[in-house]
Amino acid sequence: MSHAIELDFCVGDPTLPRGPQGYACKDPAKVTTDDFVYTGFRGEKTPNNVFGNNVTLAFSDVFPAFNGLGISMARLDFAIGGVVPVHSHRTSEVLILVKGSIIAGFIDTNNTAYYKRLEVGDVMVFPQAMLHFQINVGKTPATAYVSLNGANPALQLTPTALFAGNLPANIAQKITLLSRKEVMQMKRIFGTA
Amino acid sequence: MSHAIELDFCVGDPTLPRGPQGYACKDPAKVTTDDFVYTGFRGEKTPNNVFGNNVTLAFSDVFPAFNGLGISMARLDFAIGGVVPVHSHRTSEVLILVKGSIIAGFIDTNNTAYYKRLEVGDVMVFPQAMLHFQINVGKTPATAYVSLNGANPALQLTPTALFAGNLPANIAQKITLLSRKEVMQMKRIFGTA
Amino acid sequence: MSHAIELDFCVGDPTLPRGPQGYACKDPAKVTTDDFVYTGFRGEKTPNNVFGNNVTLAFSDVFPAFNGLGISMARLDFAIGGVVPVHSHRTSEVLILVKGSIIAGFIDTNNTAYYKRLEVGDVMVFPQAMLHFQINVGKTPATAYVSLNGANPALQLTPTALFAGNLPANIAQKITLLSRKEVMQMKRIFGTA
Amino acid sequence: MSHAIELDFCVGDPTLPRGPQGYACKDPAKVTTDDFVYTGFRGEKTPNNVFGNNVTLAFSDVFPAFNGLGISMARLDFAIGGVVPVHSHRTSEVLILVKGSIIAGFIDTNNTAYYKRLEVGDVMVFPQAMLHFQINVGKTPATAYVSLNGANPALQLTPTALFAGNLPANIAQKITLLSRKEVMQMKRIFGTA
Amino acid sequence: MSHAIELDFCVGDPTLPRGPQGYACKDPAKVTTDDFVYTGFRGEKTPNNVFGNNVTLAFSDVFPAFNGLGISMARLDFAIGGVVPVHSHRTSEVLILVKGSIIAGFIDTNNTAYYKRLEVGDVMVFPQAMLHFQINVGKTPATAYVSLNGANPALQLTPTALFAGNLPANIAQKITLLSRKEVMQMKRIFGTA
Amino acid sequence: MSHAIELDFCVGDPTLPRGPQGYACKDPAKVTTDDFVYTGFRGEKTPNNVFGNNVTLAFSDVFPAFNGLGISMARLDFAIGGVVPVHSHRTSEVLILVKGSIIAGFIDTNNTAYYKRLEVGDVMVFPQAMLHFQINVGKTPATAYVSLNGANPALQLTPTALFAGNLPANIAQKITLLSRKEVMQMKRIFGTA
Repeated sequence: MSHAIELDFCVGDPTLPRGPQGYACKDPAKVTTDDFVYTGFRGEKTPNNVFGNNVTLAFSDVFPAFNGLGISMARLDFAIGGVVPVHSHRTSEVLILVKGSIIAGFIDTNNTAYYKRLEVGDVMVFPQAMLHFQINVGKTPATAYVSLNGANPALQLTPTALFAGNLPANIAQKITLLSRKEVMQMKRIFGTA
Repeated sequence: MSHAIELDFCVGDPTLPRGPQGYACKDPAKVTTDDFVYTGFRGEKTPNNVFGNNVTLAFSDVFPAFNGLGISMARLDFAIGGVVPVHSHRTSEVLILVKGSIIAGFIDTNNTAYYKRLEVGDVMVFPQAMLHFQINVGKTPATAYVSLNGANPALQLTPTALFAGNLPANIAQKITLLSRKEVMQMKRIFGTA
Repeated sequence: MSHAIELDFCVGDPTLPRGPQGYACKDPAKVTTDDFVYTGFRGEKTPNNVFGNNVTLAFSDVFPAFNGLGISMARLDFAIGGVVPVHSHRTSEVLILVKGSIIAGFIDTNNTAYYKRLEVGDVMVFPQAMLHFQINVGKTPATAYVSLNGANPALQLTPTALFAGNLPANIAQKITLLSRKEVMQMKRIFGTA
Repeated sequence: MSHAIELDFCVGDPTLPRGPQGYACKDPAKVTTDDFVYTGFRGEKTPNNVFGNNVTLAFSDVFPAFNGLGISMARLDFAIGGVVPVHSHRTSEVLILVKGSIIAGFIDTNNTAYYKRLEVGDVMVFPQAMLHFQINVGKTPATAYVSLNGANPALQLTPTALFAGNLPANIAQKITLLSRKEVMQMKRIFGTA
Repeated sequence: MSHAIELDFCVGDPTLPRGPQGYACKDPAKVTTDDFVYTGFRGEKTPNNVFGNNVTLAFSDVFPAFNGLGISMARLDFAIGGVVPVHSHRTSEVLILVKGSIIAGFIDTNNTAYYKRLEVGDVMVFPQAMLHFQINVGKTPATAYVSLNGANPALQLTPTALFAGNLPANIAQKITLLSRKEVMQMKRIFGTA
Repeated sequence: MSHAIELDFCVGDPTLPRGPQGYACKDPAKVTTDDFVYTGFRGEKTPNNVFGNNVTLAFSDVFPAFNGLGISMARLDFAIGGVVPVHSHRTSEVLILVKGSIIAGFIDTNNTAYYKRLEVGDVMVFPQAMLHFQINVGKTPATAYVSLNGANPALQLTPTALFAGNLPANIAQKITLLSRKEVMQMKRIFGTA
């Protein structure tokens, strides 16, 4: 088994069967330069959710050129005081801050948190599968780009995983040690109470 | 680069430098059968922590024969009502229940929870890096064995990551949307308030 | 190329084309909790073959949730005096004994055998691709569970590979150094003489 | 063998032996948040070489936190008319343009070139090991960030590989089909004639 | 995720969808011994191109048994004075010379060239993705076999990538530092001027 | 985690600690071209063992340049009637016959044998971890080269694993179903009776 991709590129074709390593490849005869360029990060992105963020994922489902290449990107925009809540990925991630000032950090399996206020141009790495977060602590909006070493690296936000889906409140309470009252309050935030 | 291990075995030697793929190998001339057998799961395991569980990890640091082989195990013992709280690993995990009755489940990145009550002999798989949990819902103690496809696959418990270490309360609050009161209550549980 | 799976899960759909890394994925909209739970290990398993064993494989073909996750299981039941004959897999394997007493062992490429009598609760690891075996040496039936770090890790039993299939007797003799008489005796055991 | 890193992180220690998968790990007790933050991309970067570029590599040798995590970054600054000449890596690469306007492209193994003028915010992916390049075609300096899915993914510039090192002119000529005169002219550019 | 192939073999079926890790598998019921034997290297191979070589690739598209197994081969025949020009692959390569005498070499990312005259029976390794080349320096034709650790490892010849395809002359000139005159001369060699 | 090697090359230094992915790297400043060239296959190789073969392994322990690159080679010489007995590796293997005529084959996990008489120039692939063999069926000595996609892919010969080492006769008998008499005869061949 080779670790390398087994063809020059495999632009994903979502109409074909998908396997554990990604989509089947679009007919190479129909691939053009435009397949390799993603323009979805252009312009302003306005945070308008409960977290005060706007996360634009360029994973292989929206940018199929990443399929099979084991890399992807996302753009993070933060309102003043905005946050990307605690979350994890299947892969590692690197972030570069291009506007504003944020605190970024991760927590290791000894429960040690590593966090720091970043300036424009600073890079921080979040090791594979570790819980991490970003908080806009500046007086202006902030923007960062991240890259992850998977084409579809998953984004599992802890608060929404626990409170925004179909997990029953009594199970959520039991597996978090949170109070019933707080669990219901969280579920109200996400409209699942 | 081969995917295979590059020698028959590489029993870890924690006194030598450690790399990203594990420990350096113990001198093969000093390796005996006992290196390949782990006896730490024998006997009774009494849950005595706040979660009502007793988790015995057989990762490569305690069972160095796993080093480089990409596999490991753990034994989970549950008191009546005991729980392994929501957590994740770098790898996938498979569980087999050998005593009692538990609800086991995981949550995917669409916030969909998959959970079920298991009987003795049942197997459940938790995909790589997904949040998952186990709850003893029977009237007796319960025991399960799990195997993970990494020699040191990490165990990141969400509640302890957020509240049992050095993460400041104000950051924990900000990245979880929990109330200040609840964050402080959680930190009191883990003695970090 | 990422090492991680490129979606949360990929429950195998055997009706779709299969690739080197496994089956194509079942439509996620049709995946339910039951897909992630395997009940085929429940109950008693009676050894009734020439080896005195009953091997229940939970590989990705019978438990499609393993597809793409790189992990699988098997249950081994031994009659008194039963044996899992010498065999190998593409992957590594870990065994836990839950009933009875067996000798388990493997042989490395220096022809050194590592073998030991295991008690209930003992764990033994068999490194990737090494020949290994288990023998019930107790006075009762025995049961073990094994886990392997591949979804379909192969089970190649040396005696059946050589004598139970279409390999001609003269080739089997030549590549094993066994006597003609013994080769024919083995083929008679497996009904291929 | 697991695909995942076998510990939470492995900040490289260049004073210890290095293996095929990276450096040995710095003592975790001495790791601090600063190990995970790279500040070398701050400020202005002035192109001052023959190519009109300034390439700042953040590979694992200068940012040891990347060690074992399979990801890295670089900052590309272009003078007006500046270029990153044709080159390749062991890995795939993704680029985001943050200032100016460049043509970026790669060539596949059918000799087909895929190239396009990018605007600020545009992302382009260069598949693993394919020759690629960037040219500042705007009227101002330009800046881009790139990320690669290896901690030390190599940067092999074709012109310098052939003409700036110890490769004899007659071999360079023979393996490129270039004229003797041109080979010598190239070697003069790099001071090796 | 396992590093191993997830079935015994996966002879590629080019009529089915292809993914990043190779072709989907031919129906195993239709696989015969002939699928595993490649006869395309038999006999004499006459170099008749501009390089004085005849390169016979046994990659997975012509020998589908390699699909999913991460290995492939090629036969290199050299006229007197013939050359395999500078090129690279996604993978590593090993060469064994079986006739004649060649200089083989590669260039690392410090621009250091490692090259040597080989005798019959000599083996040389070219590390993953590094530029390398072979030149017949003997007085007779020469033949070598190479093996690469990918089923479809790519062959990117630098001269043809730059001058034999659709890359415009002005871009080729800009990204190589070559003179306009030389670029046009190269394009004339390959019929693209 | 990247699949690629994390430096240009890592010529193994057996005096340094060894990890699961290979040896630590020799000081690059001391690496010369000779490190990348293996001359141990030169000349005649005379089979003189009980199998009538002479197997010359070029694995990473004798050719340290293979270390970390995931590839290796071996030369197989057969006396008239000579055989490489049934064996397996951790990796896949490809064989090219350069002299004589042999039958080569492998057995899959359905006990189906795939075997064929090869002519000079023929290539056969043996999938990862499958039992395989070669028999000289011609009237002259024969020679083949093989390549494997691991730097140290293991060679486990079934007959010697079972009968030439420390495995007790009663265990060997039990796990093979062979007769006591035959087991003792085999052990006499290898001097372990």
